Order: sequence, then C-alpha cells, then structure tokens
Amino acid sequence: MEQQSKIFGIRAVIEAINSGKTISKVFLQKSLSGQLFSELNTLLAKHNISKSYVPVEKLNRLSKNNNHQGVVAEISPIEFADLDTLISESLTSDTSPLFLILDGISDVRNFGAIIRTAECTGVNAIVISKQGSAPVNSETIKTSAGAAFKVPICKVDHIKDALFQFGAADIQTVAATEKTENSVYNINFTKPIAIIMGSEDRGVNPSVLKMVNEKAKLPLLGEIESLNVSVACGAFLYEATRQRL
Amino acid sequence: MEQQSKIFGIRAVIEAINSGKTISKVFLQKSLSGQLFSELNTLLAKHNISKSYVPVEKLNRLSKNNNHQGVVAEISPIEFADLDTLISESLTSDTSPLFLILDGISDVRNFGAIIRTAECTGVNAIVISKQGSAPVNSETIKTSAGAAFKVPICKVDHIKDALFQFGAADIQTVAATEKTENSVYNINFTKPIAIIMGSEDRGVNPSVLKMVNEKAKLPLLGEIESLNVSVACGAFLYEATRQRL
Repeated sequence: MEQQSKIFGIRAVIEAINSGKTISKVFLQKSLSGQLFSELNTLLAKHNISKSYVPVEKLNRLSKNNNHQGVVAEISPIEFADLDTLISESLTSDTSPLFLILDGISDVRNFGAIIRTAECTGVNAIVISKQGSAPVNSETIKTSAGAAFKVPICKVDHIKDALFQFGAADIQTVAATEKTENSVYNINFTKPIAIIMGSEDRGVNPSVLKMVNEKAKLPLLGEIESLNVSVACGAFLYEATRQRL
Repeated sequence: MEQQSKIFGIRAVIEAINSGKTISKVFLQKSLSGQLFSELNTLLAKHNISKSYVPVEKLNRLSKNNNHQGVVAEISPIEFADLDTLISESLTSDTSPLFLILDGISDVRNFGAIIRTAECTGVNAIVISKQGSAPVNSETIKTSAGAAFKVPICKVDHIKDALFQFGAADIQTVAATEKTENSVYNINFTKPIAIIMGSEDRGVNPSVLKMVNEKAKLPLLGEIESLNVSVACGAFLYEATRQRL
C-alpha cells in the first residue's frame, strides 16, 4: 500500500502544487500556523485539494519519520483528465459516446473494480467529484488491474456540473437507482449516454436524480434490496455493451 | 470480524463434530499428539473438515487466551445444504433451474458480493468445493448483505462431482472463461442451467472446462484481459435474468 509517493514539508508541498503536480490529499498537523501555512492553505483552496488535520503521529508514520514540518502531501499516481476535452473527442469518434459518472463511491476496492469494468466495456471516461470520492491510490490501481492508467478519470467540483456538460453535448444521462419502475432493459444504450452510479450507502444523490434524463433499475428477484455497486455497474455496462455489439 | 463463534479444547471440538455442528475450520497446535488428538484427526478426515496447523500464539489469539488445549474450531454461521435435494426441488419448480458453481473463489469479499448477486437473481443454490474456497465467515456474510442466510450453499468434495449431478438431472453447464470464441450473448439461459465461475487467479480449472456443456465469454473491448470475478458473475447472472424476464 505504501508505493504511493509522498512529499514532506511546507515549502516542498507548495512548490509541488505550483509546479502542477497532481496532489491527492494533504495531511496537516493540527496546531500548524504562520505565514507559510496560510499560503499553503490558500493554494489548497484555490486548487480544490482535499486536506485533513491529523495528529503528529500520523504524519510521522506517513513520512517514515522524515522531517515533515507538519505537512505531508500524497502525489496522485495518475493525471486527471479534462471532461470537456473528452466529451468533444467522444463526439467525433466512430462509436457512440459512453461515459460513467460515480456519485460518491467511497470504497477503493469498488472503485478499482469499476475502473476495470469501464476499461473492458470501452467507457470514454469516468467522472468523479472532488470531494467524497474514493482516492486513486495504489490499492485502487491494484484492484483496477492497472485499468486506472488506461481509462481517463475526470474530477469535477460537483456531479451536477458534469450533468450540465453532458446535457450541452446532447449526451443523455441515466441514473442507476431502485427509485423507479423503469427496467434497465428498457433503456436504449446505443445512443450517446452517461450512466450514473450512486454511493454504497445512499445511492445516487436525490438532487442529481432530479436532473437526469432517465432512471433505470436492475430487476431484484429476491429479498435483498440492492446489489454491490461494482456488480450493479457491471450489469449496466454489459447491458450497454450487449446492445452496442 | 470476531463475531464468529469458536469452540476451544479437544474434547469440546470432538463433541461439537459428533453432535452435528457445522465446523468451518479447525486450528491445531503443531506439536499436538496423543490418543484424543488421533481421535479428533480421524473425525476431521471423516467429515472432510478443513484443518490448519498453527503456532500456539495464533491459538491464544483465536481463543482470547482461553484454555484451548491446542485446538480451536470455528463454527460455521450457516448450515450447508444438500445439492441432490436442491436439484430435485428445482426440477419441480415453476421457474427453470439456475445454479451457480464457484470453482475456487478465494477472496471473501468477492464471495460475499457473488452470494448477494445470486440472491438478487433467483439462483437456486451456490455450489463450492470443500477445499480451496473462501470460507463463509462474518466478513462473507457482511459483504453478502445477509444473502448468505437466504441462498442455499452446497459443499461438494470436487466440482466434478457437482457436474455429474447436474448432468444426471439434464441441467446444462456453462463455464465463464476467456478460453473460447463463444459470446455469453449466444447462450440460451432460459433452459435449466448451471453457471461456473473460476478462481481469481486461474479461472475455471482446465479439467472442469473439459467436462462442461458450453463455454462462454464476456466481450472485453479494452486491453485488460479479465474482469473482477464478482463483476463477471453479475454480468452472467443478469444476462440470464434478462433472458428469463
């Protein structure tokens, strides 16, 4: 798990951000203050980088007792892609655009398995939100079987932003949710489409559900009320694949 | 993880086996010998109960420092079902039999997710082999969302035994494998059928592949050569569900 590269020290982290490095997350010592710290905090806010205040013991562990000065940053093992660029590219491709939006998937193993399925089903890109998503770390990459290096992943401030971008490009959005009577087998997946999968706990956010073009559910023939999200995502993506063959 | 009930001590474990308790696994101290130990070993062999020789420290931990006398047994949280009985029942049901055979799934989270999907798709029973399968423990039950209490699970000595039983009942067997040109979408899942999923590392055993009626693969449109097994299993079971609607 500790293959992920890290940067220690306030100045080093500031430099990394300014030089365009993709930072997954910054861990800060609780008691930190001073001018450099303010500068770092401003940069984190500007670049929408996730941060977390932790006890000094955690920083010692993360930095393997290097001189961290109260700051440890995790470098993302992948570069995130620009959604607008990928939408434009998808519209000029021979195959109909197929996007996948993850609304708050928080488990790295689910995230990894979903990235792997997306690669196997020709998904143009995966969209996640900056906050509340599982990180792309070494565990994600491992469970993705390396697919995280092959499928573009885009971070947006809010899932709603992505829905507006897809709407503007005439790409239909369909949410996977049990809160509908519409079966997934009634959906036409051959048109340009973005599939939205919700979080493990709460499913797709109600405010997102209000904005989508269609909702669809998988039949559930037993008493259990939902599937594992990576399994459900696979069933959606393979129904799309079947229709597109 | 430690919700699973355990029994400590040689006599207690012998009694538990003789009284018909379902034991998942027995942990034995390496240096154990004597008449009672021989008696226990004979019983374990007779009932085909999995055993493992471990250092005394592990036994102390498993027993929470109770007086284990070198033996700790884990009680299975579920009762296993009889495959012949379930096959007979399935043949008199209104819906066409649908079974799932797991040939060496070793990860409890994959196993749990698969049990959950099986419950949601109306699978009659899951078949696993006595050796080399992930255990049904508290983690399996958790990731199955409780489905492990609802879908019958049958243990067989060897997967081949199950194939003979299905063959005798005119239930077709189809293996999920990349070692075929046949697409899963060419399979008729409306007939009585048993789907075979292989292990995370090696897929379906070659000797099992030789015995099945059909082989089928999911299309893989990217560069990654396989899916997570619980995702692949979901795609197979939902294709069956779609055809059976």
